[in-house]
Amino acid sequence: MSPFRSVVFLSGGVGGARLLHGMAQVLPSEALTAIVNTGDDFEHWGLSVSPDLDTVMYTLSGLADESRGWGLLDESFRARSLMERYGGPSWFALGDQDLATHITRTQALRDGTSLTAVTARLCKAVGVRQQILPMCDQPRRTIIDTFEYGSLPFQEWLVKYRAPSVQAVRFVGANGATSAVHHAIERADLIVLGPSNPYVSIDPIITLSGVRERLAQKCVVALSPIVAGRAVKGPLADMVRTLSGLEASPQAIAAHYRGLVRGMVVEHGDAEALSHLPMHETSTIMGGAADRARLAREVLAFAERLQ
Amino acid sequence: MSPFRSVVFLSGGVGGARLLHGMAQVLPSEALTAIVNTGDDFEHWGLSVSPDLDTVMYTLSGLADESRGWGLLDESFRARSLMERYGGPSWFALGDQDLATHITRTQALRDGTSLTAVTARLCKAVGVRQQILPMCDQPRRTIIDTFEYGSLPFQEWLVKYRAPSVQAVRFVGANGATSAVHHAIERADLIVLGPSNPYVSIDPIITLSGVRERLAQKCVVALSPIVAGRAVKGPLADMVRTLSGLEASPQAIAAHYRGLVRGMVVEHGDAEALSHLPMHETSTIMGGAADRARLAREVLAFAERLQ
Repeated sequence: MSPFRSVVFLSGGVGGARLLHGMAQVLPSEALTAIVNTGDDFEHWGLSVSPDLDTVMYTLSGLADESRGWGLLDESFRARSLMERYGGPSWFALGDQDLATHITRTQALRDGTSLTAVTARLCKAVGVRQQILPMCDQPRRTIIDTFEYGSLPFQEWLVKYRAPSVQAVRFVGANGATSAVHHAIERADLIVLGPSNPYVSIDPIITLSGVRERLAQKCVVALSPIVAGRAVKGPLADMVRTLSGLEASPQAIAAHYRGLVRGMVVEHGDAEALSHLPMHETSTIMGGAADRARLAREVLAFAERLQ
Repeated sequence: MSPFRSVVFLSGGVGGARLLHGMAQVLPSEALTAIVNTGDDFEHWGLSVSPDLDTVMYTLSGLADESRGWGLLDESFRARSLMERYGGPSWFALGDQDLATHITRTQALRDGTSLTAVTARLCKAVGVRQQILPMCDQPRRTIIDTFEYGSLPFQEWLVKYRAPSVQAVRFVGANGATSAVHHAIERADLIVLGPSNPYVSIDPIITLSGVRERLAQKCVVALSPIVAGRAVKGPLADMVRTLSGLEASPQAIAAHYRGLVRGMVVEHGDAEALSHLPMHETSTIMGGAADRARLAREVLAFAERLQ
C-alpha cells in the first residue's frame, strides 16, 4: 500500500506514459493524476493532434503499439496513402483508427469544448480511469530554434527534420495552466516528474505561470531520462550538452531541476557522488507491464523514504 | 464521332455517375463537363462531405465500389469503429480511405479555397480529366419536409431515417451557381439531365438563379430514372406520386421537366403515347463500362436527331 493519497505525474510521451502505466497498476485510480505536455500539439491535415496526450491514453488503455513506439496497435494507414495521392503532407503519419481520435478532438474543440473536457471523454471511452489532464487548454507551443533550419514547431523539428541540433527551446502562446492542473497540484502529496525530456516535455509544464512555485512546495521526485550518458529515446543527450554545457548525465538533469526536486531515480551505476541530491539506483529501462509496476513501486518507496 | 463539342451533364449520385462514366468513354475529355448536385452535402464528424461529387469522382476514376453503390473499392471502416467507441454518430459511414477526401476538402474550404477549386484538385489527383463542377460554391441544402419526422436535412432523411414519406422538398442557402457553371452552360451545345432523381438531384441545380432560363435555350435531353413504374434506385417512385400526384412513369418525369427538355430516353416499353415529347426507347439500366458507353452513344445519337 502506498502512503500517498494523491500522486501527480508530469508526463511527456513514451517514457512518461510507460512509468505512468506502472503507477496506474500500483495506485488506486483516484490517487493518480497525470498532467501531460501539450507543447507538441499541432494541426495536421486540419486536425488537432495531441501526440503526448494520445500516447498516454493509448498506453494506459492497452491500445498502444509499443513496439513501434507511437500510435495504435494493429493500425493501418490507408487514409494516408490517398492523402499522399491528393498531395497532402505525409511527413507525419496519422493512422486510420487514430484519425477517429483527432477527428473527435477537432470537432469538440471547434464546438467550444475544452481540451481538458474532450480528453476526459476520450479517455473514459477507452477505459482509462485515471484523471488525464492536458497542461493547458489554450495553445502553448514548443518552438525549437535550430542552427541549421531556423525556428521550427516541435513536431516539424522532431519528425520532419529529424531533430537537427538545437540552439534554444522556447514556448509561445498561452502560459496559464488550467484550474484542474492547479487543483491537482494543490491536493497532491507527491509529484513525480516522469523520465521525459526535461527541455521539451517537462519544462513546458513547469514554466506555466505559478506551476513551478506550487510544485516546489511539494515532495517532488524525478526519473532520469539519461542512462549511462545516453538518452533512452530521442535527441535528449545532444540537447543536454548544447543547452546546459554539461555532459549528458543524471547530474545534468538534477542541475536542471535544482530547487525543485528532492530526489532522483537513476539507472544502476549512474548515482555518482557529484550530486548532493538523494538518488535511488535501479533498473530504469522499462519492459512490459510488470516491469513498469516494479519501477513505480520503487519510485513510491523511495519518495516515502524522502519524507 | 459525336457532333457535340461541348456536352454539359447534370448529375446526382450513382445513376448519373454511371451514365457520365459512359459519356467519358465516348467523348473527348475536353468535350464533357459535369455539373453536380451539392444539395446533399453536409458536415459529418466535423468534415465537409459531398456525396454526389465523390460518387462522380470515384466512378470516373475507377475507384468506386460499384457493387456496394457508394464509397471506395476495397474500403475499410476502422476509424468508424473507434468513432463509435468515442460516442460519435455512426449513422453515416465514412471509410478510412474516403476520409482522405473529406479531410482534404474540409481543410481546403477552411483555408478559403472554393469547392470548385478543391474538387478540381481532387479529381486531377485521381486521374479524372473531365471538368467536374459543383453546382455552387456556397452551401445550398436540400431539406425534406416529412409527415412523420418534420424537416430533415437530405442525408438524415435518406440514410438516418431511411427515406420516410415526403411532404415537400425545399432548398435553403445560396441560390447562385458558380461562374464556371454559367460558362459551361453558355458554351454547351448539348445538355444531358442524367437519370437522377429530379426532385433532389436535378432540381437543386436547375432552380439556381438563372440556370433554368439558360438551359432552356439549349438542346436538353433527359434520361428517365423511372423504369416500368419503379425507380431504378432509391425512394423516387413514392416521391413522384406524392409530389406530382401522377403515377410514377417517364411521363411524370417529362411533365416535371416540361418546357425544358426536347427529348427523353426511356426504358423499352415505357414510351407510351401520353407524352408529346420525342422519346428514345432502349435498355437504360446500365451494367458495366461497355454498357454505359453504349447508352451514352445512344443518348448522343438521339440528341443529334433532335437538332
